[in-house]
Amino acid sequence: MEKTTVTLEDIQSAAKRIAPYIRRTPLLRQEAMGKLLGCDVYLKPEMLQVTGAFKLRGAMSKILALTPEERAKGIITSSSGNHGQACAFAGEKLGMHVTVLVPNDTPLIKVNNARRMGAEVILWDRSYDKRWAKVHEEVAEHGYTIVHPYEDPMVMAGQGTIALEIMEDLEDLDTIIVPIGGGGLISGISTAVKALKPSVRVIGVQASASAAYAESRKVGKPVEVPCLPTVADGLSCRRPGNNPYPIIEKNVDDIVAVEEKDILEATKMVAKEAKLVAEPSACVGIGAILGGKIKVRPDEKVAFVLTSGNWDIDMLGKVYNDIPVEGVE
Amino acid sequence: MEKTTVTLEDIQSAAKRIAPYIRRTPLLRQEAMGKLLGCDVYLKPEMLQVTGAFKLRGAMSKILALTPEERAKGIITSSSGNHGQACAFAGEKLGMHVTVLVPNDTPLIKVNNARRMGAEVILWDRSYDKRWAKVHEEVAEHGYTIVHPYEDPMVMAGQGTIALEIMEDLEDLDTIIVPIGGGGLISGISTAVKALKPSVRVIGVQASASAAYAESRKVGKPVEVPCLPTVADGLSCRRPGNNPYPIIEKNVDDIVAVEEKDILEATKMVAKEAKLVAEPSACVGIGAILGGKIKVRPDEKVAFVLTSGNWDIDMLGKVYNDIPVEGVE
Repeated sequence: MEKTTVTLEDIQSAAKRIAPYIRRTPLLRQEAMGKLLGCDVYLKPEMLQVTGAFKLRGAMSKILALTPEERAKGIITSSSGNHGQACAFAGEKLGMHVTVLVPNDTPLIKVNNARRMGAEVILWDRSYDKRWAKVHEEVAEHGYTIVHPYEDPMVMAGQGTIALEIMEDLEDLDTIIVPIGGGGLISGISTAVKALKPSVRVIGVQASASAAYAESRKVGKPVEVPCLPTVADGLSCRRPGNNPYPIIEKNVDDIVAVEEKDILEATKMVAKEAKLVAEPSACVGIGAILGGKIKVRPDEKVAFVLTSGNWDIDMLGKVYNDIPVEGVE
Repeated sequence: MEKTTVTLEDIQSAAKRIAPYIRRTPLLRQEAMGKLLGCDVYLKPEMLQVTGAFKLRGAMSKILALTPEERAKGIITSSSGNHGQACAFAGEKLGMHVTVLVPNDTPLIKVNNARRMGAEVILWDRSYDKRWAKVHEEVAEHGYTIVHPYEDPMVMAGQGTIALEIMEDLEDLDTIIVPIGGGGLISGISTAVKALKPSVRVIGVQASASAAYAESRKVGKPVEVPCLPTVADGLSCRRPGNNPYPIIEKNVDDIVAVEEKDILEATKMVAKEAKLVAEPSACVGIGAILGGKIKVRPDEKVAFVLTSGNWDIDMLGKVYNDIPVEGVE
């Protein structure tokens, strides 16, 4: 039977495997932000990760665990965003064939980025189901291994290495706040955290415009939601992942949905106070505090996982000037 | 006789003294930027330093070396920028009285920032000479110790700790590129580098609009230059500092002046590729490469000291959108 979940040991093995290829990002205490947010703030800046996002951890974890035969055949994924870039980068580093399926309205710059790294890019339908159907066709034809952005336990294990680093740097962590898109990141992180120190609160955050996990928890079962436009476009997800859902229901203490204006305010705060270029998706956790969605105490040590920084800087420049950008309602 | 220069031992002592108060910033290798700049790029991101600039190193180095009597009387400096903020922050941390003289056209937000940290802020004439005359009056009346942003060898020693960290992280460093304003930073850094590994090239960079050190080197003696408006406003300096000048002439291999358009392009590149919020002053070294002012080889390991990130983010947002900002010619 195929593995559908992840363990602390998987995450610890992944950490060893990926160490030569990833950056061990620092944990940055932010006193000034702490005063503004009412808690003791620690940032895990994964925009400083190689490729500008945490996604390289998961992609590398999976790829480095392939057999030589699997590696020789190559990998395939579907993602126009940070996961696709991470797979392309990993393939270039390891000299492997990588195929990335992207929606046919993907900005040319992203397509060219992946192609520059040697990836084969296939433009296909926007629909999630149609794209993954095409992935399976390609697999049948070429024998590729699928590197799914959030369903794959080995990918989850790579993302979970973030938690190992945070807990090594901050033993008396109280709370960790993690953005949820497909759910792979928080599956890995919450598994590691609850295995190492169950008393740590793990809170998932989503944009209200696309809050499948928050809605599903309310209802008590996985439900599909409409994906409205949001500045946190990196987190768009119509329904909970099959494999992440039970892990998240078991390990994650709370899931909250955050308003656009709070996400934008948080994105500005991260630039202004922490001097980090974050895409809005990365800042949803800080937005949750700004919007009063998560209660914290002044002495509470709270780690925020800042997932990524791969937005166009001209769009971010507009956010910094309070100029409306596409996606904001 | 008053000490006018700095030694490797001073810098090593400063490193021990300031360690509990500063962040040991990481050294970030940037492969993608390396392809764009034609060398092996390493960034020292001092915008991630506490207070958003390297200046806390120098201020702390000086203040922590004061006698208990001197500490009790308090310190004074003149700076509307990062050094003033660093002194105010250090004073708040150590429970000391801090006086900061600023030009009377300083933006209110900077004045209030310093006051919020408990500093006494005196608004005074824009002229350097008149402001320092007032500093000496205050010293005569209150017995304060002056913490000069670049003339003070103990301040230089603190800034030099950046070089110790870089050389610890990257033993086979070839070249280090350092912005010059008053010259305290490069005095400390070049002293450490040339003592530890004389073969490393040390290159100073200034904005063409305000290039007192570059001009002085051409002429062979310290000369005064007009300070034209520049986006690299943090580096404005009319004439070389008395104490830094001989240190720089002895240790710094080359000094180059960089055009505004290249500084702006570099500021965008740092945000886009490295995901760091840098003020333009911090990016002059990268601008020097973009403008062809420094020749590098593809395999050359080049460290860029990114000094600071304390520009208003709305102004930076304009830079990211190629909208002209004040100060650009």
